[in-house]
Amino acid sequence: MTLASDAVVLLSGGLDSAVTLAVLRADGYAVHALTIDYGQRHAVEIERAARLATHYGAEHRVVSLDLRAFGGSALTAGLSVPKDRPEGAGGIPITYVPARNTIFLSLALAWAEVLGAGAIALGVNAVDYSGYPDCRPEYLAAFERLARLATRVGVESGSAPRIVAPLIGLTKADIVRRGVELGVPFELTHSCYDPEDGAACGRCDSCRIRRRGFEAAGVPDPIPYADRAGAGRP
Amino acid sequence: MTLASDAVVLLSGGLDSAVTLAVLRADGYAVHALTIDYGQRHAVEIERAARLATHYGAEHRVVSLDLRAFGGSALTAGLSVPKDRPEGAGGIPITYVPARNTIFLSLALAWAEVLGAGAIALGVNAVDYSGYPDCRPEYLAAFERLARLATRVGVESGSAPRIVAPLIGLTKADIVRRGVELGVPFELTHSCYDPEDGAACGRCDSCRIRRRGFEAAGVPDPIPYADRAGAGRP
Repeated sequence: MTLASDAVVLLSGGLDSAVTLAVLRADGYAVHALTIDYGQRHAVEIERAARLATHYGAEHRVVSLDLRAFGGSALTAGLSVPKDRPEGAGGIPITYVPARNTIFLSLALAWAEVLGAGAIALGVNAVDYSGYPDCRPEYLAAFERLARLATRVGVESGSAPRIVAPLIGLTKADIVRRGVELGVPFELTHSCYDPEDGAACGRCDSCRIRRRGFEAAGVPDPIPYADRAGAGRP
Repeated sequence: MTLASDAVVLLSGGLDSAVTLAVLRADGYAVHALTIDYGQRHAVEIERAARLATHYGAEHRVVSLDLRAFGGSALTAGLSVPKDRPEGAGGIPITYVPARNTIFLSLALAWAEVLGAGAIALGVNAVDYSGYPDCRPEYLAAFERLARLATRVGVESGSAPRIVAPLIGLTKADIVRRGVELGVPFELTHSCYDPEDGAACGRCDSCRIRRRGFEAAGVPDPIPYADRAGAGRP
Protein backbone atom coordinates (compact mmCIF):
# COMPACT_ATOMS: atom_id res chain seq x y z
CA MET A 1 0.00 0.00 0.00
CA THR A 2 2.66 2.47 1.02
CA LEU A 3 4.61 1.83 -2.14
CA ALA A 4 1.66 2.87 -4.30
CA SER A 5 0.38 5.88 -2.36
CA ASP A 6 3.33 8.04 -1.33
CA ALA A 7 5.16 10.38 -3.66
CA VAL A 8 8.15 12.64 -3.20
CA VAL A 9 7.61 15.84 -5.20
CA LEU A 10 10.53 18.14 -6.02
CA LEU A 11 9.13 21.56 -5.15
CA SER A 12 11.07 24.67 -6.16
CA GLY A 13 8.33 27.18 -5.42
CA GLY A 14 7.90 27.89 -9.13
CA LEU A 15 4.80 27.53 -11.30
CA ASP A 16 5.66 24.12 -12.73
CA SER A 17 6.48 22.37 -9.49
CA ALA A 18 3.37 23.87 -7.85
CA VAL A 19 1.16 22.44 -10.61
CA THR A 20 3.02 19.12 -10.35
CA LEU A 21 2.31 18.99 -6.62
CA ALA A 22 -1.38 19.71 -7.33
CA VAL A 23 -1.52 16.97 -9.99
CA LEU A 24 -0.02 14.36 -7.66
CA ARG A 25 -2.44 15.34 -4.89
CA ALA A 26 -5.36 15.16 -7.33
CA ASP A 27 -4.14 11.70 -8.39
CA GLY A 28 -4.50 10.54 -4.79
CA TYR A 29 -0.89 10.43 -3.66
CA ALA A 30 0.19 11.34 -0.16
CA VAL A 31 2.68 14.02 -1.13
CA HIS A 32 6.05 14.74 0.50
CA ALA A 33 7.61 17.93 -0.82
CA LEU A 34 11.37 18.24 -1.17
CA THR A 35 13.05 21.59 -1.73
CA ILE A 36 16.75 21.85 -2.46
CA ASP A 37 18.40 25.05 -1.29
CA TYR A 38 21.30 24.95 -3.74
CA GLY A 39 22.72 28.43 -3.41
CA GLN A 40 20.31 29.84 -5.96
CA ARG A 41 20.17 33.59 -5.90
CA HIS A 42 16.86 34.13 -4.17
CA ALA A 43 15.73 32.74 -0.84
CA VAL A 44 12.18 33.75 -1.76
CA GLU A 45 11.91 30.48 -3.71
CA ILE A 46 12.40 28.46 -0.53
CA GLU A 47 9.79 30.50 1.34
CA ARG A 48 7.27 30.07 -1.48
CA ALA A 49 7.89 26.33 -1.54
CA ALA A 50 7.14 26.17 2.18
CA ARG A 51 3.87 28.08 1.70
CA LEU A 52 2.84 25.83 -1.18
CA ALA A 53 3.62 22.70 0.86
CA THR A 54 1.48 24.04 3.71
CA HIS A 55 -1.32 24.83 1.25
CA TYR A 56 -1.32 21.22 0.05
CA GLY A 57 -0.84 19.63 3.48
CA ALA A 58 2.44 18.11 2.35
CA GLU A 59 5.29 17.15 4.63
CA HIS A 60 8.13 19.47 3.61
CA ARG A 61 11.89 19.01 3.85
CA VAL A 62 14.53 21.46 2.77
CA VAL A 63 18.00 20.09 2.02
CA SER A 64 20.83 22.58 1.82
CA LEU A 65 23.53 21.95 -0.73
CA ASP A 66 25.92 24.60 -1.92
CA LEU A 67 26.36 24.09 -5.67
CA ARG A 68 28.29 27.38 -5.79
CA ALA A 69 31.29 25.21 -4.86
CA PHE A 70 31.37 24.13 -8.51
CA GLY A 71 30.30 27.29 -10.34
CA GLY A 72 29.30 26.87 -13.97
CA SER A 73 25.86 28.54 -14.01
CA ALA A 74 24.48 32.06 -13.94
CA LEU A 75 22.04 30.85 -11.29
CA THR A 76 24.73 29.87 -8.79
CA ALA A 77 28.03 31.44 -9.86
CA GLY A 78 27.23 35.14 -9.72
CA LEU A 79 27.13 35.62 -13.51
CA SER A 80 24.62 38.04 -15.04
CA VAL A 81 21.21 36.59 -15.85
CA PRO A 82 20.49 37.36 -19.53
CA LYS A 83 17.55 39.69 -20.19
CA ASP A 84 15.43 40.12 -23.31
CA ARG A 85 17.16 37.19 -25.05
CA PRO A 86 15.99 36.83 -28.66
CA GLU A 87 13.41 34.11 -29.31
CA GLY A 88 14.85 30.82 -30.44
CA ALA A 89 18.39 31.75 -29.38
CA GLY A 90 18.91 27.98 -29.03
CA GLY A 91 21.72 26.08 -27.34
CA ILE A 92 21.95 25.32 -23.66
CA PRO A 93 21.35 28.56 -21.69
CA ILE A 94 23.93 29.79 -19.17
CA THR A 95 21.25 29.46 -16.50
CA TYR A 96 21.74 25.68 -16.91
CA VAL A 97 23.03 24.23 -13.62
CA PRO A 98 25.38 21.27 -14.23
CA ALA A 99 23.80 17.92 -13.37
CA ARG A 100 21.06 19.69 -11.43
CA ASN A 101 18.21 17.27 -12.03
CA THR A 102 20.50 14.29 -11.43
CA ILE A 103 21.43 15.73 -8.04
CA PHE A 104 17.83 16.62 -7.20
CA LEU A 105 16.45 13.24 -8.27
CA SER A 106 19.19 11.47 -6.29
CA LEU A 107 18.18 13.31 -3.13
CA ALA A 108 14.50 12.59 -3.84
CA LEU A 109 15.45 8.93 -4.32
CA ALA A 110 17.10 8.82 -0.89
CA TRP A 111 13.97 10.17 0.79
CA ALA A 112 11.68 8.00 -1.35
CA GLU A 113 13.61 4.93 -0.25
CA VAL A 114 13.29 5.84 3.42
CA LEU A 115 9.55 6.57 3.00
CA GLY A 116 8.89 3.55 0.79
CA ALA A 117 7.38 5.97 -1.74
CA GLY A 118 6.24 4.60 -5.10
CA ALA A 119 6.83 7.77 -7.12
CA ILE A 120 9.15 10.72 -7.47
CA ALA A 121 7.62 13.67 -9.32
CA LEU A 122 9.18 16.74 -10.88
CA GLY A 123 7.88 19.60 -12.96
CA VAL A 124 10.03 19.42 -16.09
CA ASN A 125 8.13 20.43 -19.23
CA ALA A 126 8.25 20.92 -22.97
CA VAL A 127 9.48 24.50 -22.74
CA ASP A 128 12.28 23.79 -20.30
CA TYR A 129 13.61 20.69 -21.96
CA SER A 130 14.30 22.44 -25.24
CA GLY A 131 17.57 23.69 -23.77
CA TYR A 132 18.34 21.46 -20.80
CA PRO A 133 19.66 17.93 -21.34
CA ASP A 134 18.33 16.68 -18.03
CA CYS A 135 14.71 17.61 -18.80
CA ARG A 136 14.26 15.13 -21.67
CA PRO A 137 12.11 11.97 -21.45
CA GLU A 138 15.05 9.69 -22.31
CA TYR A 139 16.99 11.19 -19.43
CA LEU A 140 14.13 10.54 -17.01
CA ALA A 141 13.77 6.96 -18.25
CA ALA A 142 17.50 6.42 -17.67
CA PHE A 143 17.18 7.72 -14.12
CA GLU A 144 14.28 5.35 -13.44
CA ARG A 145 16.43 2.42 -14.61
CA LEU A 146 19.27 3.62 -12.39
CA ALA A 147 16.91 3.82 -9.40
CA ARG A 148 16.03 0.14 -9.76
CA LEU A 149 19.74 -0.77 -9.52
CA ALA A 150 20.63 1.80 -6.85
CA THR A 151 18.31 1.02 -4.00
CA ARG A 152 17.63 -1.58 -1.39
CA VAL A 153 13.97 -1.77 -2.46
CA GLY A 154 15.04 -2.16 -6.09
CA VAL A 155 17.38 -5.04 -5.24
CA GLU A 156 15.05 -6.77 -2.81
CA SER A 157 11.77 -6.40 -4.74
CA GLY A 158 12.84 -5.60 -8.31
CA SER A 159 10.83 -2.38 -8.17
CA ALA A 160 11.77 1.18 -7.35
CA PRO A 161 10.07 4.58 -7.42
CA ARG A 162 8.66 5.60 -10.79
CA ILE A 163 9.82 8.97 -12.10
CA VAL A 164 6.70 10.98 -12.84
CA ALA A 165 6.78 14.15 -14.94
CA PRO A 166 3.12 15.04 -15.52
CA LEU A 167 3.92 18.30 -17.34
CA ILE A 168 6.52 16.97 -19.72
CA GLY A 169 4.29 17.13 -22.80
CA LEU A 170 2.62 20.43 -21.91
CA THR A 171 3.25 23.95 -23.11
CA LYS A 172 3.39 26.71 -20.52
CA ALA A 173 -0.19 27.71 -21.48
CA ASP A 174 -1.31 24.10 -20.93
CA ILE A 175 0.36 24.14 -17.51
CA VAL A 176 -1.44 27.37 -16.57
CA ARG A 177 -4.76 25.86 -17.67
CA ARG A 178 -4.10 22.68 -15.68
CA GLY A 179 -3.26 24.86 -12.68
CA VAL A 180 -6.55 26.74 -13.05
CA GLU A 181 -8.50 23.46 -13.19
CA LEU A 182 -6.79 22.28 -10.01
CA GLY A 183 -7.11 25.62 -8.19
CA VAL A 184 -3.35 26.17 -7.81
CA PRO A 185 -2.63 29.34 -5.81
CA PHE A 186 -0.54 31.04 -8.52
CA GLU A 187 0.04 34.05 -6.29
CA LEU A 188 2.31 31.88 -4.12
CA THR A 189 4.54 30.80 -7.00
CA HIS A 190 7.83 32.40 -7.97
CA SER A 191 9.54 32.07 -11.36
CA CYS A 192 11.90 35.03 -11.82
CA TYR A 193 15.67 34.47 -12.04
CA ASP A 194 16.36 38.06 -10.99
CA PRO A 195 13.61 39.71 -8.92
CA GLU A 196 13.68 43.40 -7.99
CA ASP A 197 12.26 44.57 -4.65
CA GLY A 198 9.93 41.59 -4.36
CA ALA A 199 8.64 41.92 -7.93
CA ALA A 200 9.50 39.65 -10.86
CA CYS A 201 11.77 41.39 -13.40
CA GLY A 202 9.58 40.42 -16.35
CA ARG A 203 12.58 40.21 -18.68
CA CYS A 204 14.60 37.08 -17.86
CA ASP A 205 13.85 33.89 -19.82
CA SER A 206 11.83 32.45 -16.95
CA CYS A 207 9.60 35.55 -16.60
CA ARG A 208 9.04 35.82 -20.33
CA ILE A 209 8.08 32.16 -20.70
CA ARG A 210 5.74 32.45 -17.73
CA ARG A 211 4.03 35.62 -18.96
CA ARG A 212 3.53 34.25 -22.46
CA GLY A 213 2.04 31.13 -20.90
CA PHE A 214 -0.51 33.07 -18.86
CA GLU A 215 -1.27 35.27 -21.84
CA ALA A 216 -1.77 32.32 -24.20
CA ALA A 217 -4.03 30.66 -21.63
CA GLY A 218 -6.04 33.89 -21.26
CA VAL A 219 -5.49 33.86 -17.50
CA PRO A 220 -4.27 36.87 -15.47
CA ASP A 221 -0.93 36.29 -13.73
CA PRO A 222 -1.48 37.51 -10.16
CA ILE A 223 2.18 38.14 -9.24
CA PRO A 224 3.73 41.64 -9.33
CA TYR A 225 6.14 42.53 -12.16
CA ALA A 226 8.68 45.35 -11.90
CA ASP A 227 8.07 46.39 -15.50
CA ARG A 228 4.27 46.07 -15.42
CA ALA A 229 3.54 49.81 -15.44
CA GLY A 230 5.90 50.82 -18.25
CA ALA A 231 6.28 47.82 -20.49
CA GLY A 232 2.73 46.74 -21.18
CA ARG A 233 2.62 43.32 -22.83
CA PRO A 234 5.55 41.04 -22.09
CA MET B 1 43.19 16.99 -23.95
CA THR B 2 41.38 18.27 -20.88
CA LEU B 3 38.67 15.69 -21.33
CA ALA B 4 41.23 12.86 -21.15
CA SER B 5 43.46 14.11 -18.35
CA ASP B 6 41.28 15.40 -15.51
CA ALA B 7 39.50 13.20 -13.04
CA VAL B 8 37.17 13.91 -10.14
CA VAL B 9 37.87 11.42 -7.35
CA LEU B 10 35.36 10.88 -4.54
CA LEU B 11 37.56 10.98 -1.44
CA SER B 12 36.08 9.96 1.90
CA GLY B 13 39.34 9.79 3.81
CA GLY B 14 39.09 6.00 4.05
CA LEU B 15 41.50 3.35 2.83
CA ASP B 16 39.72 2.59 -0.43
CA SER B 17 39.29 6.15 -1.66
CA ALA B 18 42.93 6.92 -0.73
CA VAL B 19 44.16 4.00 -2.86
CA THR B 20 41.78 5.07 -5.65
CA LEU B 21 43.25 8.57 -5.59
CA ALA B 22 46.76 7.08 -5.76
CA VAL B 23 45.78 4.84 -8.71
CA LEU B 24 44.34 7.76 -10.69
CA ARG B 25 47.45 9.83 -10.01
CA ALA B 26 49.68 6.92 -11.06
CA ASP B 27 47.60 6.59 -14.25
CA GLY B 28 48.51 10.18 -15.13
CA TYR B 29 45.28 12.00 -14.33
CA ALA B 30 45.20 15.48 -12.89
CA VAL B 31 43.13 14.66 -9.81
CA HIS B 32 40.40 16.80 -8.23
CA ALA B 33 39.24 15.39 -4.91
CA LEU B 34 35.63 15.74 -3.81
CA THR B 35 34.55 15.05 -0.24
CA ILE B 36 30.92 15.04 0.76
CA ASP B 37 30.22 16.05 4.33
CA TYR B 38 26.89 14.26 4.65
CA GLY B 39 26.31 14.39 8.38
CA GLN B 40 28.31 11.23 8.98
CA ARG B 41 29.19 10.75 12.59
CA HIS B 42 32.84 11.71 12.56
CA ALA B 43 34.38 14.91 11.27
CA VAL B 44 37.77 13.18 11.38
CA GLU B 45 36.95 11.69 7.96
CA ILE B 46 36.80 15.16 6.41
CA GLU B 47 40.10 16.18 7.99
CA ARG B 48 41.80 13.00 6.75
CA ALA B 49 40.46 13.59 3.25
CA ALA B 50 41.96 17.09 3.26
CA ARG B 51 45.35 15.71 4.36
CA LEU B 52 45.27 13.03 1.67
CA ALA B 53 44.37 15.58 -1.00
CA THR B 54 47.29 17.75 0.10
CA HIS B 55 49.59 14.72 0.02
CA TYR B 56 48.62 14.05 -3.60
CA GLY B 57 48.60 17.68 -4.71
CA ALA B 58 44.91 17.43 -5.57
CA GLU B 59 42.51 20.34 -5.67
CA HIS B 60 40.03 19.57 -2.88
CA ARG B 61 36.39 20.61 -2.48
CA VAL B 62 34.10 19.72 0.39
CA VAL B 63 30.36 19.88 -0.26
CA SER B 64 28.08 19.89 2.77
CA LEU B 65 24.84 18.03 2.50
CA ASP B 66 22.81 16.98 5.49
CA LEU B 67 21.47 13.50 4.76
CA ARG B 68 20.23 13.30 8.35
CA ALA B 69 17.15 15.08 7.00
CA PHE B 70 16.06 11.69 5.62
CA GLY B 71 17.31 9.27 8.28
CA GLY B 72 17.36 5.61 7.33
CA SER B 73 20.97 4.68 8.20
CA ALA B 74 22.99 3.99 11.33
CA LEU B 75 25.67 6.26 9.87
CA THR B 76 23.47 9.34 9.74
CA ALA B 77 20.38 8.71 11.88
CA GLY B 78 21.88 8.21 15.32
CA LEU B 79 21.25 4.44 15.40
CA SER B 80 23.79 2.12 17.05
CA VAL B 81 26.58 0.88 14.82
CA PRO B 82 26.63 -2.94 15.08
CA LYS B 83 29.76 -4.48 16.63
CA ASP B 84 31.16 -7.98 16.27
CA ARG B 85 28.57 -8.92 13.65
CA PRO B 86 28.82 -12.61 12.71
CA GLU B 87 30.58 -13.37 9.43
CA GLY B 88 28.28 -13.78 6.45
CA ALA B 89 25.33 -12.19 8.25
CA GLY B 90 24.17 -11.22 4.75
CA GLY B 91 21.52 -8.74 3.65
CA ILE B 92 21.98 -5.01 3.32
CA PRO B 93 23.59 -3.67 6.51
CA ILE B 94 21.92 -0.87 8.51
CA THR B 95 25.01 1.24 7.84
CA TYR B 96 23.70 1.46 4.24
CA VAL B 97 22.92 5.11 3.42
CA PRO B 98 19.96 5.39 1.00
CA ALA B 99 21.00 6.36 -2.52
CA ARG B 100 24.40 7.46 -1.23
CA ASN B 101 26.51 6.65 -4.25
CA THR B 102 23.87 8.08 -6.60
CA ILE B 103 24.00 11.36 -4.68
CA PHE B 104 27.82 11.35 -4.53
CA LEU B 105 28.23 10.51 -8.22
CA SER B 106 25.71 13.21 -9.15
CA LEU B 107 27.73 15.82 -7.29
CA ALA B 108 30.94 14.54 -8.87
CA LEU B 109 29.22 14.75 -12.26
CA ALA B 110 28.38 18.41 -11.70
CA TRP B 111 32.00 19.25 -10.91
CA ALA B 112 33.30 17.03 -13.72
CA GLU B 113 31.09 18.87 -16.18
CA VAL B 114 32.38 22.27 -15.03
CA LEU B 115 36.01 21.03 -15.17
CA GLY B 116 35.57 19.17 -18.45
CA ALA B 117 36.91 16.08 -16.67
CA GLY B 118 37.00 12.79 -18.54
CA ALA B 119 36.61 10.51 -15.53
CA ILE B 120 34.90 10.20 -12.19
CA ALA B 121 36.53 7.72 -9.83
CA LEU B 122 35.29 6.10 -6.66
CA GLY B 123 36.64 3.44 -4.35
CA VAL B 124 33.86 0.84 -4.34
CA ASN B 125 35.18 -2.72 -4.07
CA ALA B 126 34.34 -6.40 -3.93
CA VAL B 127 33.94 -6.44 -0.16
CA ASP B 128 31.67 -3.42 0.02
CA TYR B 129 29.41 -4.31 -2.85
CA SER B 130 28.40 -7.62 -1.28
CA GLY B 131 25.82 -5.74 0.76
CA TYR B 132 25.27 -2.40 -0.97
CA PRO B 133 23.20 -2.19 -4.17
CA ASP B 134 24.97 0.95 -5.37
CA CYS B 135 28.43 -0.63 -5.34
CA ARG B 136 27.74 -3.19 -8.12
CA PRO B 137 29.25 -2.99 -11.61
CA GLU B 138 25.80 -2.92 -13.27
CA TYR B 139 24.86 0.07 -11.13
CA LEU B 140 28.02 1.94 -12.16
CA ALA B 141 27.37 1.16 -15.84
CA ALA B 142 23.83 2.53 -15.49
CA PHE B 143 25.17 5.73 -13.96
CA GLU B 144 27.63 6.15 -16.83
CA ARG B 145 24.75 5.83 -19.33
CA LEU B 146 22.76 8.38 -17.33
CA ALA B 147 25.71 10.80 -17.37
CA ARG B 148 25.75 10.78 -21.17
CA LEU B 149 22.08 11.85 -21.21
CA ALA B 150 22.31 14.26 -18.28
CA THR B 151 25.01 16.68 -19.30
CA ARG B 152 25.74 19.45 -21.71
CA VAL B 153 28.95 17.70 -22.80
CA GLY B 154 27.04 14.45 -23.29
CA VAL B 155 24.43 16.15 -25.49
CA GLU B 156 26.87 18.28 -27.45
CA SER B 157 29.64 15.71 -27.99
CA GLY B 158 28.00 12.35 -27.30
CA SER B 159 30.58 11.65 -24.61
CA ALA B 160 30.55 12.14 -20.87
CA PRO B 161 32.83 11.29 -17.96
CA ARG B 162 33.63 7.60 -17.56
CA ILE B 163 32.88 6.09 -14.16
CA VAL B 164 36.11 4.49 -12.97
CA ALA B 165 36.19 2.03 -10.07
CA PRO B 166 39.74 0.64 -10.06
CA LEU B 167 39.22 -1.42 -6.89
CA ILE B 168 35.94 -3.05 -7.83
CA GLY B 169 37.42 -6.48 -8.46
CA LEU B 170 39.88 -6.40 -5.55
CA THR B 171 39.70 -7.92 -2.10
CA LYS B 172 40.70 -5.77 0.85
CA ALA B 173 44.09 -7.53 0.93
CA ASP B 174 44.58 -6.71 -2.77
CA ILE B 175 43.74 -3.08 -2.02
CA VAL B 176 46.29 -2.95 0.81
CA ARG B 177 48.94 -4.48 -1.51
CA ARG B 178 48.11 -1.97 -4.25
CA GLY B 179 48.39 0.80 -1.67
CA VAL B 180 51.82 -0.45 -0.59
CA GLU B 181 53.03 -0.52 -4.23
CA LEU B 182 51.87 3.06 -4.69
CA GLY B 183 53.19 4.33 -1.36
CA VAL B 184 49.80 5.35 0.04
CA PRO B 185 50.17 6.99 3.48
CA PHE B 186 47.92 4.51 5.31
CA GLU B 187 48.45 6.39 8.58
CA LEU B 188 46.32 9.22 7.18
CA THR B 189 43.34 7.01 6.34
CA HIS B 190 40.31 6.49 8.53
CA SER B 191 37.86 3.59 8.28
CA CYS B 192 36.08 3.19 11.64
CA TYR B 193 32.31 3.79 11.90
CA ASP B 194 32.58 4.45 15.63
CA PRO B 195 35.99 5.69 16.82
CA GLU B 196 36.85 6.08 20.51
CA ASP B 197 39.19 8.87 21.66
CA GLY B 198 40.89 9.14 18.29
CA ALA B 199 41.40 5.37 17.96
CA ALA B 200 39.48 3.02 15.66
CA CYS B 201 37.10 0.75 17.61
CA GLY B 202 38.36 -2.40 15.91
CA ARG B 203 34.94 -4.05 16.16
CA CYS B 204 32.59 -2.43 13.64
CA ASP B 205 32.23 -4.02 10.19
CA SER B 206 34.51 -1.44 8.64
CA CYS B 207 37.33 -1.96 11.17
CA ARG B 208 37.08 -5.74 10.96
CA ILE B 209 37.21 -5.78 7.16
CA ARG B 210 40.17 -3.38 7.21
CA ARG B 211 42.14 -5.36 9.79
CA ARG B 212 41.57 -8.67 8.02
CA GLY B 213 42.75 -7.00 4.80
CA PHE B 214 46.01 -5.79 6.31
CA GLU B 215 46.53 -9.14 8.01
CA ALA B 216 45.92 -11.12 4.82
CA ALA B 217 48.31 -8.83 2.95
CA GLY B 218 50.95 -9.31 5.66
CA VAL B 219 51.22 -5.55 6.13
CA PRO B 220 51.09 -3.77 9.52
CA ASP B 221 48.17 -1.34 9.85
CA PRO B 222 49.72 1.87 11.24
CA ILE B 223 46.54 3.38 12.76
CA PRO B 224 45.72 3.10 16.48
CA TYR B 225 42.98 0.70 17.60
CA ALA B 226 41.16 1.05 20.92
CA ASP B 227 41.15 -2.71 21.47
CA ARG B 228 44.73 -3.35 20.30
CA ALA B 229 46.11 -4.11 23.78
CA GLY B 230 43.43 -6.52 24.94
CA ALA B 231 41.94 -8.13 21.89
CA GLY B 232 44.93 -9.37 19.97
CA ARG B 233 43.99 -10.55 16.51
CA PRO B 234 40.94 -8.88 14.96
